[in-house]
Amino acid sequence: MKISKYLLPIGEMPRQWYNITADLPTPMQPPVTPDGKPITPDMLAPVFPMNLIEQEVSRERWIDIPDEVLELLSIWRPTPLVRATRLEKFLKTPARIYYKDESVSPPGSHKPNTAVAQAWYNKQFGIKKLTTETGAGQWGSALSFACNLVGLECKVFMVRISFDQKPYRKTMMQVWGGNCVASPSNETQAGRDVLKKMPDTPGSLGIAISEAIEAAVTDKSGKTRYSLGSVLNHVILHQTIIGLEAKKQLKMAGEKKPDLVIGCAGGGSNFAGLSFPFVNDKINGEKIEFIPVESSTCPKMTKGPFTYDFGDIAKMTPLLPMFTLGHSFVPPPIHAGGLRYHGMAPLVSQCIIEGLIKPRAYNQLKCYESAMTWAKTEGYICAPETSHAIACVIEEAKRAKDEGKEKVILFNYSGHGLLDLAGYNKYLSGKLTDVTLPDDELCDSLKAIKDLPKAAIKKTGKW
Amino acid sequence: MKISKYLLPIGEMPRQWYNITADLPTPMQPPVTPDGKPITPDMLAPVFPMNLIEQEVSRERWIDIPDEVLELLSIWRPTPLVRATRLEKFLKTPARIYYKDESVSPPGSHKPNTAVAQAWYNKQFGIKKLTTETGAGQWGSALSFACNLVGLECKVFMVRISFDQKPYRKTMMQVWGGNCVASPSNETQAGRDVLKKMPDTPGSLGIAISEAIEAAVTDKSGKTRYSLGSVLNHVILHQTIIGLEAKKQLKMAGEKKPDLVIGCAGGGSNFAGLSFPFVNDKINGEKIEFIPVESSTCPKMTKGPFTYDFGDIAKMTPLLPMFTLGHSFVPPPIHAGGLRYHGMAPLVSQCIIEGLIKPRAYNQLKCYESAMTWAKTEGYICAPETSHAIACVIEEAKRAKDEGKEKVILFNYSGHGLLDLAGYNKYLSGKLTDVTLPDDELCDSLKAIKDLPKAAIKKTGKW
Repeated sequence: MKISKYLLPIGEMPRQWYNITADLPTPMQPPVTPDGKPITPDMLAPVFPMNLIEQEVSRERWIDIPDEVLELLSIWRPTPLVRATRLEKFLKTPARIYYKDESVSPPGSHKPNTAVAQAWYNKQFGIKKLTTETGAGQWGSALSFACNLVGLECKVFMVRISFDQKPYRKTMMQVWGGNCVASPSNETQAGRDVLKKMPDTPGSLGIAISEAIEAAVTDKSGKTRYSLGSVLNHVILHQTIIGLEAKKQLKMAGEKKPDLVIGCAGGGSNFAGLSFPFVNDKINGEKIEFIPVESSTCPKMTKGPFTYDFGDIAKMTPLLPMFTLGHSFVPPPIHAGGLRYHGMAPLVSQCIIEGLIKPRAYNQLKCYESAMTWAKTEGYICAPETSHAIACVIEEAKRAKDEGKEKVILFNYSGHGLLDLAGYNKYLSGKLTDVTLPDDELCDSLKAIKDLPKAAIKKTGKW
Repeated sequence: MKISKYLLPIGEMPRQWYNITADLPTPMQPPVTPDGKPITPDMLAPVFPMNLIEQEVSRERWIDIPDEVLELLSIWRPTPLVRATRLEKFLKTPARIYYKDESVSPPGSHKPNTAVAQAWYNKQFGIKKLTTETGAGQWGSALSFACNLVGLECKVFMVRISFDQKPYRKTMMQVWGGNCVASPSNETQAGRDVLKKMPDTPGSLGIAISEAIEAAVTDKSGKTRYSLGSVLNHVILHQTIIGLEAKKQLKMAGEKKPDLVIGCAGGGSNFAGLSFPFVNDKINGEKIEFIPVESSTCPKMTKGPFTYDFGDIAKMTPLLPMFTLGHSFVPPPIHAGGLRYHGMAPLVSQCIIEGLIKPRAYNQLKCYESAMTWAKTEGYICAPETSHAIACVIEEAKRAKDEGKEKVILFNYSGHGLLDLAGYNKYLSGKLTDVTLPDDELCDSLKAIKDLPKAAIKKTGKW
């Protein structure tokens, strides 16, 4: 019996998260106010609890995972590392393809890795309720799940296009006690403002974030905070458990290192979670390539500038140094709702600037084709977001074949597609098309950020 | 870190299935024709391939699992055995509750255990296409998945009520290349006959089976066969891998034996798959209780007679000795589509007659309440069918608390509910009611079978 699944014993779960800030060649630029002044921790206090703010600004390389968080994570972790032997055989590739299966969590993605940590830290800090936004619904259900586990209330603003396309995500949140509304909503000033101007808007993560932050900071009890499912340093920190586990599991599989690490990237956390522990190896001299894959309808990494921008449309967040299409950018409706965010995590952005990682963009038709190949070979039905990683994996595995090169490809199977079958249905009935992004839309949203402070990290040119 | 997940190494997967026929105290009665003559293997040849017919009538205790079938099973097997520590804590029960997690397969249930075996044996026999019926859609998607893996065509007749309630099950089948239509359909004589009499019928498994068998036996190429997802001996045989794995895993958990084994039971295969290897222990003197749980809207085990009956409404199957509500019985619509079959597997029926196992029935409202408790404690969202097992587990765990008794409860977590969120949505919005079964409906369908040959197994009274 050939082994293709590598299961880490529960006792070998990582006890610390990895903080790449400690190892980046160039120090990170701080988040700033619109007049360019660095944000201080106390300015973030109405939005996040201080224990998470400390993680956000920490430069410690290793941060302990509390035992109680580990125990919550163990509901579904460690997750399997699997070798995709059937896909390899189908592609006749000499590449060895491994995937880290983050779809096994109750909400079905990598998101609860940070959701349970954030819920736990908020609870420790005396918070009673969390607000958040969600795109595809993965994050909203993850936070509802996490809040239920630790005993917090949870309010979710869900991007309208996904709210309509994925009604059962809402049911899922409700099963775990979460309260979910479509965004823009009438419950916040930010939402009402957008609805007045664009009553038919499909919504965006930027709008939903504005609503969620407003709902948190305007709660007079002072016991409500906001929670973000990607982008921020502490979120990426929590996700590094993926890559730390994968490192041990690759050794179990007899592999010294991956040659190529791939993940889809919306805000950047699943890609960073898997890859940062390996980026550390690259910084220390190992030869590894990294590809964060975005949607060609929301191409911030491949077409956007690196600059300071707001995280949300109502400009409630600090300015973050990142690749961005502008905070007012609303991408066309695509099924990979999790890839519709206008910006990329500052840590991932900085790795791009440094030349440590090289982004790529794919269109949704090619991605669904790849998802079908995956389902017919490996058996499982992937999330539309994950299909972007798979499209890249397949392309690289074919390249390895053409070049006759052995190669170890590792990618993050960030979520299953069992609540995304509407997209598959559209694809199967021939109605799914590539959404082309009009260039002027991109220009408008970029024009709106041209007077913001500039971020000025220079590429070290080392990689 | 407390261990609550028991993962069997892949090398320890069982290499043989367990055939309980070899150990039953009273020999099984054969399937018969309407005039009471035993069915011979060659009479089944137009419906099933001979290699599976041999398994159906085999009395060998152990039957080898072919290496290639094992390899296909290893896509998701061995499945985890998990201790439900959060549920235990919530119930404050001294019982130790373990569940065998069959929801991890690509189609999301235990069904592919037999689907891949059946597809493989049919392929070996030179068959090109399989037809089948499906209730909740679990079986139809499992067979589509399996046919895709081995390279067979697959045609699925899906009970109309589930076809309407679960549109994405169809999409799932299509992703794997299956062809799915609502039953009754216009594609068969059996379907057209029913539609003429009852144009608005929600359909039933009995009707869908008639259609699927007709589609197989009327195919002039001779290369089409029919495949059944439950009820038959060879199906239950393939499912025993569940219990055989669970036995090894319980030992890993330090348990000598379960005191109580529970599974929901529609046709009987997931219950039997987990429990029969342990029923063997009971036959050999071990003290273990077994509870197959049915829906109170389709109470064949708790209210039906044990007698010979057809497996389908059009009387195309042989007569089987079983607990039944009559082959014309159409249960009211409930969300647990997999529990709507009118009969119970002959092997499970015989175990009831022998007193080895004791069935119980629950209504769907109580079951959804139990499913909610499960989701809020253990985190995962279960299938409506599985919620029947959970309702029983919770009741028995509470009883253990009242009696102050330690007890090992083992149950089959037969499937996840991620494609069944419509039912949860109905429950959460307060619209889910208990469907009460009018007694006269039961009477009518039972009257229709009173002149069929009688089955005459006597209880041994030993248990």
